[in-house]
Amino acid sequence: MSTDTALTVPTRFVEAGGIRFAYRRWGKPGGPPLVFMQYFSGNLDDWDPQVTDGLAAEYDVILFDNAGVGSSGGETPGAVSEMARHALAFSDALGLKMFSVVGFSLGGMIAQQLALDHPDRVNRIILLGTGPRGGEGMTFTELSAEERADPDRFLLAAFFSPTDVSQAAGREYLKRLAARTRDRDLPVTTKAAEAQLHAIREWGAVPSSDRYATLPKIKHPTLVVHGTKDIVVQPVNAFILAEHLPEAQLIMYPDSSHGAQYQHAELFLKHAKLFLNA
Amino acid sequence: MSTDTALTVPTRFVEAGGIRFAYRRWGKPGGPPLVFMQYFSGNLDDWDPQVTDGLAAEYDVILFDNAGVGSSGGETPGAVSEMARHALAFSDALGLKMFSVVGFSLGGMIAQQLALDHPDRVNRIILLGTGPRGGEGMTFTELSAEERADPDRFLLAAFFSPTDVSQAAGREYLKRLAARTRDRDLPVTTKAAEAQLHAIREWGAVPSSDRYATLPKIKHPTLVVHGTKDIVVQPVNAFILAEHLPEAQLIMYPDSSHGAQYQHAELFLKHAKLFLNA
Repeated sequence: MSTDTALTVPTRFVEAGGIRFAYRRWGKPGGPPLVFMQYFSGNLDDWDPQVTDGLAAEYDVILFDNAGVGSSGGETPGAVSEMARHALAFSDALGLKMFSVVGFSLGGMIAQQLALDHPDRVNRIILLGTGPRGGEGMTFTELSAEERADPDRFLLAAFFSPTDVSQAAGREYLKRLAARTRDRDLPVTTKAAEAQLHAIREWGAVPSSDRYATLPKIKHPTLVVHGTKDIVVQPVNAFILAEHLPEAQLIMYPDSSHGAQYQHAELFLKHAKLFLNA
Repeated sequence: MSTDTALTVPTRFVEAGGIRFAYRRWGKPGGPPLVFMQYFSGNLDDWDPQVTDGLAAEYDVILFDNAGVGSSGGETPGAVSEMARHALAFSDALGLKMFSVVGFSLGGMIAQQLALDHPDRVNRIILLGTGPRGGEGMTFTELSAEERADPDRFLLAAFFSPTDVSQAAGREYLKRLAARTRDRDLPVTTKAAEAQLHAIREWGAVPSSDRYATLPKIKHPTLVVHGTKDIVVQPVNAFILAEHLPEAQLIMYPDSSHGAQYQHAELFLKHAKLFLNA
């Protein structure tokens, strides 16, 4: 074990394809690499330390800011396919031959695209609070880059359900996110967030035919995790993923919204390890 | 630990309300009681020993034949509500004040009804391959009591998906079911199966209003387990349960049909214990 934790691991940089990517890497040396792909407007600091440290006990945990996000250089593209290309370039730069992916929301879209485009590079996939290309209600017409003006309020409203139990879990989550005090990441710019939103909306557009045709081509063992009360990505999208991905296991947690895996962090860690170690 | 196993535990009898119920009980003495409720035309021998022995390591496992089924006396009623009443009478006769329930298919319907009618008697609920009252495609117009003429063929076709992997898992399951050679249960009569079918169809009838109104009243922690390719009870029913039951966790296994929990027995045992011990 390295002595680093989510709170102390330094932010490092690696150059790939002319882009300087910010990343943090810690965990079990020589353990199976696990690359984390973040949600709309999230940066390195927005991964729950309870989850990343929990996985770092057994895996080589790698968080990164994609192009144009947080402390990374380059420009955020307006398409998921380009984001997947950047993610691969970053992985190449770290010398990762094969890795598992944890993709949350937008990150889950990138993970699907990456697995589709480069099946031999991806081992296992964990999809958190995400949906298929052309899923149900995934054009997010109500979302805007300005929603992030009050991030704590945004997270409590979007990631947690209105119940007292869920809101209390949300406040604990916010505390965990704030616990890293030094070497914090840069905020995601409005320009980057707008490009991400463009990419998400393009992903969410319902095609005129063969709506879920790409899913059967993603043959990787996949764990789909969702909240039964997710108000950002409708829960039915997780069900659709499980129906169409040939090797998907689906787990849904009760009374939880977009941050289901953080509200139920302890149980999620156990489920994720059972899946990753299978 | 008692030395009994699923293969050696004797069939016992207990009288309740004029009915002589056949049951098998073994496992951790003083452990939390876990009452198993069986599917259409299944008897005591149709529970997978891998699953029941796995749970018996930590729980007080209790299998029983409901009224008119297998070696039990009495008549099988044509309504789930009556079956729940009989299940409660049986539990009373064993002196169980509070217990958790594992209900598979028809057994899951009985478990829901029992939890609704007697919430204080039920601790946790595991629902396997089942659906809500008035669920999707749950009137089973194609099913008949004659389907059971060749039970092995019936089970391989209904409980396992057509893939080689699933069919091989099915043959292993059938071997496990056959491993108990002495003191086997009596087959379920056609008369009992027809009454069960009547009860299932009444449960599956879609009401003219308030389709899932009873589900929010079942506030017990519930684990819903289903196969993504279940051809008996459509997978969407598990999703509907998770959407409407306030404390339901949903787990779906890939490439598996009505016997998902047997195809993935090892993983299911781990998931079930995480749920029961929470």
